[in-house]
Amino acid sequence: MTLETVSTTKAFGGVQGVYRHESRETKTPMTFSVFVPPQAGPRPVVWYLSGLTCTHANVTEKGQFQRVCAELGLIFVAPDTSPRGEGVPDDPQGAYDFGLGAGFYVDATQTPWAANYRMESYVVSELPEVVAAAFAVDMARQGLTGHSMGGHGALTLALRHPGRWASVSAFAPIASPMRCPWGEKALGGYLGPDRAAWRRHDATALIEDGARLPDLLVDQGEADGFLESQLRPELLEAACRDAGIPLTLRRQPGYDHSYYFIASFMEDHLRWHAERLG
Amino acid sequence: MTLETVSTTKAFGGVQGVYRHESRETKTPMTFSVFVPPQAGPRPVVWYLSGLTCTHANVTEKGQFQRVCAELGLIFVAPDTSPRGEGVPDDPQGAYDFGLGAGFYVDATQTPWAANYRMESYVVSELPEVVAAAFAVDMARQGLTGHSMGGHGALTLALRHPGRWASVSAFAPIASPMRCPWGEKALGGYLGPDRAAWRRHDATALIEDGARLPDLLVDQGEADGFLESQLRPELLEAACRDAGIPLTLRRQPGYDHSYYFIASFMEDHLRWHAERLG
Repeated sequence: MTLETVSTTKAFGGVQGVYRHESRETKTPMTFSVFVPPQAGPRPVVWYLSGLTCTHANVTEKGQFQRVCAELGLIFVAPDTSPRGEGVPDDPQGAYDFGLGAGFYVDATQTPWAANYRMESYVVSELPEVVAAAFAVDMARQGLTGHSMGGHGALTLALRHPGRWASVSAFAPIASPMRCPWGEKALGGYLGPDRAAWRRHDATALIEDGARLPDLLVDQGEADGFLESQLRPELLEAACRDAGIPLTLRRQPGYDHSYYFIASFMEDHLRWHAERLG
Repeated sequence: MTLETVSTTKAFGGVQGVYRHESRETKTPMTFSVFVPPQAGPRPVVWYLSGLTCTHANVTEKGQFQRVCAELGLIFVAPDTSPRGEGVPDDPQGAYDFGLGAGFYVDATQTPWAANYRMESYVVSELPEVVAAAFAVDMARQGLTGHSMGGHGALTLALRHPGRWASVSAFAPIASPMRCPWGEKALGGYLGPDRAAWRRHDATALIEDGARLPDLLVDQGEADGFLESQLRPELLEAACRDAGIPLTLRRQPGYDHSYYFIASFMEDHLRWHAERLG
């Protein structure tokens, strides 16, 4: 396994790096970013899963996490959102919400997506191996967060792999992809028409079906243009209430779906993770 | 005078806006950004002048100033770096360091640049009028900063217009454009071959010729690839020492010329300005 350094830049006393490797899961080169804080020794890590159309670069450049990670001693890793490159199939119409930039953090079972679109295995298994081999990460202390499609990813992966992440949060997550247009298109495309398979990749359905988290922080902008049509936090709220999962759902007046919203509440999320990661 | 709102986004309790207007100085539409903090009433303002190739967007998205401006109650304005659009002449070879994105904060005297390239008058006079008319700015309390070419802009404009800004700082400024390739090309192009005219737009020469500032904060990354060839802070340091100008020049080990460098020290600069703006 070879890790190529694309760039390293000093930031807030730590190092913001961008790296590339050949993925066995996606069978493509995959690019990701890692912020290493100034503190020595193995450090806890927060994984950030990005939303539709994003690469590692959006949160790395606009997420404003470096200052707080440097203070708290957190490593921060941002993967890409899909395989990319020659030979990777994309949405036939080139839509933004399926295919490239829209892997939805599942392992696809349908042709032609199954060969490359293996973002669950990539995020859960392969990338952590790569990161653990190259950085001083305390793999016993990992947190998971994400935005929009990546919020869906954070919630579903944490619910599907109990205990794997000690802290979980999300920014404006897709709360129930089975019950919104983005999710219906993605889950139908990657997993096929059987909606029983979709339930295993739907945060609200997973909770309804018995999956649990110790607790959960979610921020949602009230001026988010996708709030009612795609995100639907009330579905997650009801499921958590019925399941007894302590959900801190903060509806933030005036905030939209952008990285300014994420940046505004990034510090709160990082402190949430740091408290739980010890 | 009509101000067009391109976008407004809530961030850190304030509003990050992008605006456009028809400039009488450049005879083009000009785009700029304004962050308005959550505090009510007329607020002090910090002007940020960007470097080569930048628009308002670079610092707005990557400068990480919003949190601190929201805390300190500072308005933050970021102008563009040149006129743009149909009919605006550009470097004949399309080089990045002259013409579009490279106005150097002077009023050009040479053909064909003189008609549009009036960035000193735009930044010193026109844009402040536009901003004062549209936002609750306390125009008696203004600070000026900038990066690289914009650091040159901040220093020279403050030296040329004494008392206009109550606080001045710079990130990796071009300390003496007369004595570096970027500056020789720009000043020669915009102002012609008479080097006496260049001295009036060279921070180090202005100080040598008697211009003064109350004090000055400069951060400079020691791993900045332009340090020795273009920026040359030692020239500014010597001039300030000889003139008795209190210069706080911080050489930051490991930092480069990027926005990660700027973001890392943005808070220090904003606190520097806030202290002086009261």
